[in-house]
Amino acid sequence: MAILKVDFLTLFPAMLDGFLTESMLGRAQKNGILELRAHNIRDWAEGKHKITDDRPFGGGPGMLMKPEPVFAAIEELQSSECTRIYMCPDGEKLSPQIASELAKSKHLIILSGHYEGIDERIRECVIDREISIGDYVLTNGTLPAAVLVDTVARYVPGVLGEENSLSTDSFNNNLLSFPQYTRPAEFRGMKVPEVLMSGNHGEIERWRRERQVERTNKRRPDILKQS
Amino acid sequence: MAILKVDFLTLFPAMLDGFLTESMLGRAQKNGILELRAHNIRDWAEGKHKITDDRPFGGGPGMLMKPEPVFAAIEELQSSECTRIYMCPDGEKLSPQIASELAKSKHLIILSGHYEGIDERIRECVIDREISIGDYVLTNGTLPAAVLVDTVARYVPGVLGEENSLSTDSFNNNLLSFPQYTRPAEFRGMKVPEVLMSGNHGEIERWRRERQVERTNKRRPDILKQS
Repeated sequence: MAILKVDFLTLFPAMLDGFLTESMLGRAQKNGILELRAHNIRDWAEGKHKITDDRPFGGGPGMLMKPEPVFAAIEELQSSECTRIYMCPDGEKLSPQIASELAKSKHLIILSGHYEGIDERIRECVIDREISIGDYVLTNGTLPAAVLVDTVARYVPGVLGEENSLSTDSFNNNLLSFPQYTRPAEFRGMKVPEVLMSGNHGEIERWRRERQVERTNKRRPDILKQS
Repeated sequence: MAILKVDFLTLFPAMLDGFLTESMLGRAQKNGILELRAHNIRDWAEGKHKITDDRPFGGGPGMLMKPEPVFAAIEELQSSECTRIYMCPDGEKLSPQIASELAKSKHLIILSGHYEGIDERIRECVIDREISIGDYVLTNGTLPAAVLVDTVARYVPGVLGEENSLSTDSFNNNLLSFPQYTRPAEFRGMKVPEVLMSGNHGEIERWRRERQVERTNKRRPDILKQS
């Protein structure tokens, strides 16, 4: 059995095709670490036309997701150990802390909205947690669901291969990462900083730390203050 | 000719398959408004093994993207009117302002990193702008590139159909959006707030505005202060 099972609920499951099969997430599924399934909310809609949206009470532009298909889908998929998440711009902001916390779950159900929004009764009754990937608005919530699972998966044991690591991530110790260089040592006249070729690990460590503080001070003084 | 042309540069172009064909972005391409192309950086790598990565100078875990294939790709794709963007956690934070600004461009080239990062000389020489979708780390930059283009596209004339609108977005006037309801008027004993069925547009407007302020105060007092 997979360590983490994720059910995506969206009107555009095909948007997740490439995400589910490529790169590290594809590999983690082949290795049985993750089990990721994309479902079409429309499959739970009733009637000949399988309608999933309707106009808002009180007027205004756009269409809203109706409650019935979403309630039915979540009630069929949910388990005693699941967390039911709705991706929305007014949710709590995704962070490494939230990601590592959710990585300890066994089962996530992630609802992606479309149209102008979803009926508020869905949010009140069948959602445990509302998460935002950032202060901007997208055409629908399917990409945010993929972003959430991608960052959560990095904390699930076995997903990151040995060639990668959490330890040099940006935001570790509230610092951005340092500049990195690889071969060639000289490219179009631009040389790699000498200290990195010195073999002096103490000096390399010090140089990198200084660059981290410098870059964080310049670009993100707000995260430095938190430490 | 399309209003906005976007070239994606990634090691996982297939991750974008569903994103490029489904939903509003797929439709906007069919209508000739957007022209979105995913390229594999590997196609610009030389030698039998088409190597795109190498170990970091100075030591440390992981692999870095080499400069040569990325320089070659960007130099082939760039135009006099393009903005060259690198998606990275230490870039400027994506916002509706940045999105609407980029929507006025004619041509974007978006570089998505993989591995531990990319050679710093790429960032110094062939990148105009570094953008982050949020304070968290992903397995690679392909999803962030899709997120950026999705939110930018909403500001390109003709992409949002008439059924959608920018006017009721979260973050408009520094307020989160109000709760929305659609039919049925009563669902499992939960009724839609009466005011929304009243037909009194002044009262509906006032109720919605109060809910927006209430929700923003509770969830995001930080954005209220900016107004």
